[in-house]
Amino acid sequence: MLEKNDLNVKALSAEERERLCEEIRRKIIETVTVCGGHLSSNLGVVELTVGMFFVFDFPRDKVIWDVGHQCYAYKLLSGRYEKFHTLRQKDGLSGFPKRRESVYDCYDTGHAGNSVSAAIGLAKARDLKGESGRVIAVIGDGSFNNGLIYEALNGISVLDVRVLIILNDNDMSISPTVGGTHELLGQNARDEELKKKNIALIEQYGVQYVGVVNGNDLGEVTDALRRADELLQKSSVLLHIKTKKGMGYDFCEENPMQTHGVAPNGSGAEKEYSSVFGDTMLALARKDERVVAVTAAMTDALGLRPFFNAFPERAFDVSICEENAAVLCAAMAQGGLKPYYAIYSTFLQRAFDELIHDICAQDLPVTFCIDRGGISGADGETHQGVFDLSYLSIIPNMTIAVPKDGKELADMLEFSLTYPHPLAIRYPRSAKAAFGCKRAIEAGTFEYLTDKTDADLTVLAAGERAVSLAFRLREETGVPFDIVNARFVKPIDEALLGAIRSPRILTIEDNVRMGGLGDQIDRFYLNAGKEIYNFAYYDRFIPQGDVAGLQEEYGWDLEEIRACIQKGRK
Amino acid sequence: MLEKNDLNVKALSAEERERLCEEIRRKIIETVTVCGGHLSSNLGVVELTVGMFFVFDFPRDKVIWDVGHQCYAYKLLSGRYEKFHTLRQKDGLSGFPKRRESVYDCYDTGHAGNSVSAAIGLAKARDLKGESGRVIAVIGDGSFNNGLIYEALNGISVLDVRVLIILNDNDMSISPTVGGTHELLGQNARDEELKKKNIALIEQYGVQYVGVVNGNDLGEVTDALRRADELLQKSSVLLHIKTKKGMGYDFCEENPMQTHGVAPNGSGAEKEYSSVFGDTMLALARKDERVVAVTAAMTDALGLRPFFNAFPERAFDVSICEENAAVLCAAMAQGGLKPYYAIYSTFLQRAFDELIHDICAQDLPVTFCIDRGGISGADGETHQGVFDLSYLSIIPNMTIAVPKDGKELADMLEFSLTYPHPLAIRYPRSAKAAFGCKRAIEAGTFEYLTDKTDADLTVLAAGERAVSLAFRLREETGVPFDIVNARFVKPIDEALLGAIRSPRILTIEDNVRMGGLGDQIDRFYLNAGKEIYNFAYYDRFIPQGDVAGLQEEYGWDLEEIRACIQKGRK
Repeated sequence: MLEKNDLNVKALSAEERERLCEEIRRKIIETVTVCGGHLSSNLGVVELTVGMFFVFDFPRDKVIWDVGHQCYAYKLLSGRYEKFHTLRQKDGLSGFPKRRESVYDCYDTGHAGNSVSAAIGLAKARDLKGESGRVIAVIGDGSFNNGLIYEALNGISVLDVRVLIILNDNDMSISPTVGGTHELLGQNARDEELKKKNIALIEQYGVQYVGVVNGNDLGEVTDALRRADELLQKSSVLLHIKTKKGMGYDFCEENPMQTHGVAPNGSGAEKEYSSVFGDTMLALARKDERVVAVTAAMTDALGLRPFFNAFPERAFDVSICEENAAVLCAAMAQGGLKPYYAIYSTFLQRAFDELIHDICAQDLPVTFCIDRGGISGADGETHQGVFDLSYLSIIPNMTIAVPKDGKELADMLEFSLTYPHPLAIRYPRSAKAAFGCKRAIEAGTFEYLTDKTDADLTVLAAGERAVSLAFRLREETGVPFDIVNARFVKPIDEALLGAIRSPRILTIEDNVRMGGLGDQIDRFYLNAGKEIYNFAYYDRFIPQGDVAGLQEEYGWDLEEIRACIQKGRK
Repeated sequence: MLEKNDLNVKALSAEERERLCEEIRRKIIETVTVCGGHLSSNLGVVELTVGMFFVFDFPRDKVIWDVGHQCYAYKLLSGRYEKFHTLRQKDGLSGFPKRRESVYDCYDTGHAGNSVSAAIGLAKARDLKGESGRVIAVIGDGSFNNGLIYEALNGISVLDVRVLIILNDNDMSISPTVGGTHELLGQNARDEELKKKNIALIEQYGVQYVGVVNGNDLGEVTDALRRADELLQKSSVLLHIKTKKGMGYDFCEENPMQTHGVAPNGSGAEKEYSSVFGDTMLALARKDERVVAVTAAMTDALGLRPFFNAFPERAFDVSICEENAAVLCAAMAQGGLKPYYAIYSTFLQRAFDELIHDICAQDLPVTFCIDRGGISGADGETHQGVFDLSYLSIIPNMTIAVPKDGKELADMLEFSLTYPHPLAIRYPRSAKAAFGCKRAIEAGTFEYLTDKTDADLTVLAAGERAVSLAFRLREETGVPFDIVNARFVKPIDEALLGAIRSPRILTIEDNVRMGGLGDQIDRFYLNAGKEIYNFAYYDRFIPQGDVAGLQEEYGWDLEEIRACIQKGRK
C-alpha cells in the first residue's frame, strides 16, 4: 500500500499499519542496499513514524528529526515514495530532511543536538502568530548528550512554549553511546526509584515525562503518542522510547555500527585515509606514552578502533560533544600529554570557539586529525568539509597540513609528535594515489612534485585530489608546467614561493575560495606582477552528488582550468 | 598584610583571615575604580578564595576560573599584589587568568562554560603522568547553564577522573540568570525534597554533592572546602555555594548589573552603538510585530533593556547559551518571525556551526547585531572581536554590513526589516563620529564619502574606526585621495569597484588580515594591474591595551599607511 499516492495512515486498521511497517522496512533495505545511506537507524524508527502519522496531522504538525538521518520512513509516508530510488543521488532525494523537497520537511538538519532548540523556536513562532499545530523533536540518545540539548531544555521555560520531545533511545550513537547522561537515561528502564528521580528532573524543566515505551511495538508506541499528546495540552512532554537499531533486518541488528552508514553496492574497495591514520596512531602511541586520542562518537569511522583496543586508558570517546572534546584536548596538552582529536571536518565547526579560545590563544600542542575534508558527496550540504581550510587559517598560532597521499599523512603524524603548536592535518575520505615524498615534512614547506623548471606556469595544489588533478591535466594538455605540493596551507612556504620565476601561478584546493589557500597565495604575490588563477569552490552550499561531478560543477571547472593552462601557448 | 610578599594564608588565624578578606575587598574596590574591570563578581568570591588558599596547596593544586573575571582576589594572593595597580592596562596584569603571568594560573579563560572540561583534562593528564594534586573548577551559575557544562559532566565517567567543581551561585550572570537549569539549582536552597532529587541527579554523573553553603561566610566556606576535599578522595565533588555579587560594597550589592563591568573613572561619556541599537530595535518592534530579540545573558550591555521592558513577550534572554540562541533564531525565522540576535563579536564564535548549518544553509532571515566588533581593548586576547568579518565571509548566503556611524547602524537595521537573507551588522562599542549618508542602504553597496575623483589613490574603509582614520590621514597628509565607505564586507560592491580608475587602492578594516575585506578586494582586482595595500591586523592574538594603541601596534601601522598614501607623490 506504500506505493499509493493518497495513502492515509489514519484510515488504516491496526493490522494494515503493521503491514505498512513491513513494507516500509523492505523498501528501505532494498533502496539503501543500492543507494547507500543510513540503514539501521531508519529501520529502528519505522513503528514510531507510522504511529506519528496515525496520531498527528502532518504537515500542519511539524517534526524536526535530530541529525535527520532517520527520516526515510517519514519521507516514504509524505509523498516521496516514487522518488525514493533517487535517495542520496545527484538531484535526487536527500538522505536528510530538506525544506526544498516537501512541505512535510520543516527544518533541515544534519548535525546533532539542535532539534529541541528548533522545536522551541518553531513553537514560539506559532504562538506569537496565533497559529496552532504540534511541534515535535525526535532525537536519539547519542544526540541527547550534546550540550545544545541542555541549553534548549533550559530555554523551554524562558520561551514558555509547549513541544513534544521524543527521545529515541537505542543505546547507540554511531559508536555505542557513552557517558553519564546516557547512564542516567538508561537507568530509567531498569530502576524504579531512579526513574522517579529522573522524571522529577525532567519535570523541573517544565517538561512532563512519558516512558519508557517499546518503540518497535506499533500498538505500544501509538498509545504512548496519544498519551503524550494529551499531556501536551498542559506543558512540554518528553516521550522516552526504546528502539532497536536495525530492527527487522538480522544483519543490522547484529552489526549496528557497521550498518549505521552503508556504502552502495560495489563501492568500498579503496583504501581509506582513516586506516592509515589508525595504524599510524597506534605506532605513535607505542613510541610515546604521552599520546592520547579523543573522538566524539566516531571511533570506527575515523579508524581509531585498533587504538581504542590497544590503549583503552589513553583513548576517549566523549560521545557527540565536540566542544568538550576540544577543551579536554587543550587541558590535556597543557597538562603535558599529546592529544590527537580525530573528527570529521564538518563537525569540527562546532568547536570553532574552542579552537580559538582554548587551543590557539594558549598555543597548545593539540593535533586535529580532520577526516572527510573537502567535498564528501552523498550526504549533501550539511556534511561537506569545504570550510575548514578557511576557518582554520584565520586563527593565529594554527598550522594546517594537507597531505597529498596516505604516506604523507603518516609522515605528517610522525612530524606532529614533536611539533609544539596547534596543528590541523586535513584529508578526504578515500586515498587512491601515491606520489612519493620529495622533501621531509617541516612546518610551512611545500615540495616540487615535478622538476623545478620555472616554466611559464607553476601549479600549486593542496591535497590529494588537487595534486591528482594537476598531474592529470599536465598529461592531458601536454603542457609541461611545474607542480608544487602546497602541503601546508598555513604557514605557506614563502621561500619556495619567492623563488618561483614562472610568470603565471595557478592554485587548486578542495575548499571554498573565500579564505583558503588561494587567498594566501594572492596575498603573497600582491603587487608582484604575476598572473594568478585560483580554483576552489564557489560561495554556495554544495548539495549531494558524486565527488568528482560536484567538484567540477562547484568550482573546479575543467574547461576553465585547461584554458588557463594553455593560455600562454598559441 | 596583603602587601607581604611571602604571605602564607595557611599560617593565619581565623581572625586574620577575616581581616585579610577586608583588605582584599578594599584593594579590589580601590583598583577597579581606577582601572575599570569586573567589580561585583570579584567582591563575591573573596571568602571563597581565601578559604581555598587556606585549604589547598597552590600552585601544586590547580584552579580553573570559569570565564575568569572573578580571579582578582586569587591574583592578589598569588604574588601579584605589587602589580595589581596595572590591572587591565597595556603590559599590565590581565583581568583574566593568564599562564604567562604566573605559575598559579594553569589555564587561560575568558569565555563561559569550559572550566569543568578543562579541569577534567588537567586531571586526566595528572593521572596518566602519575602526578598528584587537586584540580578545581570554579564556575558561576550563569556559566553553569552553558551546554559545555553538561558535555563535561557527561565526560567525567568516560575519563574516570576526580575533580572538584565549585558552583558559585549568585543568581546572576551578567543579567539575572534565567532558565530551567538555574531554577533547578535554585531549588536546592529552598526545598528539601527537591534538593535530594537534584543531589541524586548530580550523583548519577559520578559526582558527590556538598551544599548549599554560604560562600560569604569565611568559616562556613572553609569548612565546606575541607569536607569537599575529603569526599574528593573518592570521586568528583560538586560544592554548591551561595554568594552575593558585590558583597561588602553597598553600591554594588544594590546594583550588581551596573557594576558587573566598571569603566575607569572619567570614561563612559561617549555615546555608544548599543544605545542606537536599542532605540532602533524598539522602533522596529513597534512597526513590525514579527520582530523578536534574542540575547545570551547580555540584555543591558547590548542596549536591549528598553526593548525587553516594552516587549517582554518578544524578547528572550536565554542565558549563556549562544548556540541555543542561534538555533532558536533560525527556527523562529523559519516560522515566520523576524529575529534579531544581539551578541558580542567574540561570543558569536560559539555559534559558528549554527551560523553555517542552521541559518545560512537554510538561508533564513536572521539578523545578527554584533557589538564589540574589532579590538575591544582592556579585556585582552579572549575578548577581541577581530575574527568575525573573516569567519562570516566564508559562509555562503551571509551578508555582512559594517556601519560607519550610529546613523548608518540605524539605517541598516531599518534595511534589515525586509531583507530576506541572513544578515550580520557589526560595530564596535563606541560611536564617536557622524559622517552623513550619501547613498541609501542596499545590500552590497559601498558609497563615496568624498567626491569620486579617481585620484591616484582610493581608500576603501570598513567601519567607523577605519573611515575616521582615512579622513584623519587625508587631512594630515594633504593627499586628496578618494574615500569609499566599504559598508558591506560581503557582498562587495563590484559595480563601484569596477568603476574605480585610481591605479592604487588601499583598504583599512578593524579585523584580522586573513579572510577579511582586504582579501575580497585583492581577489576582485586579481590580475587587474592595480597596486593594492591592505591594512588589517596581523596574524597574532591581540592582548589588552587601549584601542588606538593596539590598532597601530597590531596592524594599522600609521607610518606605513602614510608611506603608501604618499608613495605616488615625490
